[in-house]
Amino acid sequence: MAAPSLNLFHQASPLIHCLTNDVVQSFTANVLLALGASPAMVIEPSEAGEFSAIADAVLINVGTLTAARSEAMLTAVKSAVKAGRPWTLDPVAVGALTFRSDFCQQLLEYRPAVVRGNTSEIMALARQTVSGRGVDSLHDSSAALEAATLLAKSTGAVIAVTGEIDFITDGLRILAVPGGSALMTRVVGTGCALSAVVAGFTALPGDRLIHTASACRLMSLAGEKAAATAGGPGTFAPLFLDELSRLHPEAMA
Amino acid sequence: MAAPSLNLFHQASPLIHCLTNDVVQSFTANVLLALGASPAMVIEPSEAGEFSAIADAVLINVGTLTAARSEAMLTAVKSAVKAGRPWTLDPVAVGALTFRSDFCQQLLEYRPAVVRGNTSEIMALARQTVSGRGVDSLHDSSAALEAATLLAKSTGAVIAVTGEIDFITDGLRILAVPGGSALMTRVVGTGCALSAVVAGFTALPGDRLIHTASACRLMSLAGEKAAATAGGPGTFAPLFLDELSRLHPEAMA
Amino acid sequence: MAAPSLNLFHQASPLIHCLTNDVVQSFTANVLLALGASPAMVIEPSEAGEFSAIADAVLINVGTLTAARSEAMLTAVKSAVKAGRPWTLDPVAVGALTFRSDFCQQLLEYRPAVVRGNTSEIMALARQTVSGRGVDSLHDSSAALEAATLLAKSTGAVIAVTGEIDFITDGLRILAVPGGSALMTRVVGTGCALSAVVAGFTALPGDRLIHTASACRLMSLAGEKAAATAGGPGTFAPLFLDELSRLHPEAMA
Repeated sequence: MAAPSLNLFHQASPLIHCLTNDVVQSFTANVLLALGASPAMVIEPSEAGEFSAIADAVLINVGTLTAARSEAMLTAVKSAVKAGRPWTLDPVAVGALTFRSDFCQQLLEYRPAVVRGNTSEIMALARQTVSGRGVDSLHDSSAALEAATLLAKSTGAVIAVTGEIDFITDGLRILAVPGGSALMTRVVGTGCALSAVVAGFTALPGDRLIHTASACRLMSLAGEKAAATAGGPGTFAPLFLDELSRLHPEAMA
Repeated sequence: MAAPSLNLFHQASPLIHCLTNDVVQSFTANVLLALGASPAMVIEPSEAGEFSAIADAVLINVGTLTAARSEAMLTAVKSAVKAGRPWTLDPVAVGALTFRSDFCQQLLEYRPAVVRGNTSEIMALARQTVSGRGVDSLHDSSAALEAATLLAKSTGAVIAVTGEIDFITDGLRILAVPGGSALMTRVVGTGCALSAVVAGFTALPGDRLIHTASACRLMSLAGEKAAATAGGPGTFAPLFLDELSRLHPEAMA
Repeated sequence: MAAPSLNLFHQASPLIHCLTNDVVQSFTANVLLALGASPAMVIEPSEAGEFSAIADAVLINVGTLTAARSEAMLTAVKSAVKAGRPWTLDPVAVGALTFRSDFCQQLLEYRPAVVRGNTSEIMALARQTVSGRGVDSLHDSSAALEAATLLAKSTGAVIAVTGEIDFITDGLRILAVPGGSALMTRVVGTGCALSAVVAGFTALPGDRLIHTASACRLMSLAGEKAAATAGGPGTFAPLFLDELSRLHPEAMA
């Protein structure tokens, strides 16, 4: 399933405007570069609006949101929408904290192409009862399926709920993507980088549900390969980037 | 000494709210994840206060302090104190620069659990004469022992003065922790990450002096092991994370 | 050519004040540490001015420029100039975005020691016609030679236009530095880190044109060595830092 999407991605080599959190910027950029895409981080509000109209896709990740950054994000999203560019939301720790929860609800009005989060985050976005301290999912992914379906229908977005098994839905269809490695939970930014990759895949022509699931599978596949030789979470990260750079559609088909 | 503390740490798997500098955020998060803890970086003032009341411990590192970030830090510290959560101060380059020096003196009034710094920083905090250009210690660690003891008595905090030998004092007792590797001084963030680990250990029940010294020893031990196979400072960093993830209380006892 | 410059650099072990973008701070610091220099990132405007008068050299990189950061940069540059400290400009994505383009033109009035950019950026700074989407050079390096020469003459700076071949000019002489590895374009921050190294080399006595070209060659040489054993862009980065730390003037001469 993922091979044709990866083939398109390699051909497109999309430029992705990443408005993401301070902790994962370098890893996110390196993941996109390993896959042959071009990352760019532009955060001054006036420039963020200028740039998201030029980029092929936009990522909004609220991990280290500030009031100033939220202005830049809103400007970028409005500009992307106006220019017909798709944008992806990673609602890090939404539900647990007030400012970002309000902001993400506001953003949903601008029709994201994809929302990628863990179970707690997707349930919070869908305004379902959730109890969480933030970044780690406290529910099984499948428990969020109802919330994801509701959210897909109300926003028009593809929703990806990721965990041990990733579930991707457009409100009508549901795809399940197994795989990955427990080491991925011991390295900061693997989820955030997945959202950036998903953002890149929204720039491709064709079925966005399939492309989103393909992005999830490519990341979990590279994770499995890297985990096979890694000595721990530290050596996993560079090996994971190597494996991403080696993924070839022909070998996968 | 460090094995029982590590055992408690693994059991607690604390959530640590890190308000730290921009240069070391990713490495800090990966160090905490490698040790089985949960890092989270929340920096908008309103959210920072919300979050530090939920977290098990708070880290304040002033490396890339700004006026805006100082507001978030002050809010987080006040909220942590109110909620009975311990907080740790890493006074990067204090003494050399005015804004952060004033800010750190202000913070000391909120009774940190631990202060972790190099000799120059601890001497500056204790308002002893110091000449430094910033991040590197210009004095031998032992020269700061008098300052550390004074600071421990005036603040009630455990003070960790780190260098070739780490000295940890609560004003009455002094522990010395040798070890580590010279490669640790060639990788950015090893000291900052140690402060984050120390912050995690403040969440544990028991003797805080012992726990702080244990955190210092665990980091230096992983550093020794990583240095044994590293080809230089670049490969040292991932190997160091691997070694942190492999530390087991049983093997150490 | 590079051996004598490296020898001076090792002796000087300069302290470099880096006002750089959020994506590359950690990698930049690790590159400088691997070469035996001391990086420091100080960004609060009042402190940035204090610190650049103490540091041996200053780096300004506008990759993730904000209005607030531009204030700190301007203060740092003015303070450096007043204290007789050299400063280096990395005009990331200038030409493609308005705010940074205006800001970089303003900065040029303060006589940078070196400007390091790709072809698009150098052409934009010289106000020559350029079409670019940002971070990647869309022209051959040699096409920027005329722009670089003009810019060197109008600003008094050494101009380094980097790409597959790096060209360095002071307006009268032109040096060409070949080498490097394609993997360097798949790792975020290699260009930004080169600018930080160049900034460090501006602190050395002697011929700045030679020192700048030497910095370019040292980075490309370490890149070649690392690429010989790297499995991809992920493992390249730590190996590159190892190789930087192993560069010795004697072995190179």
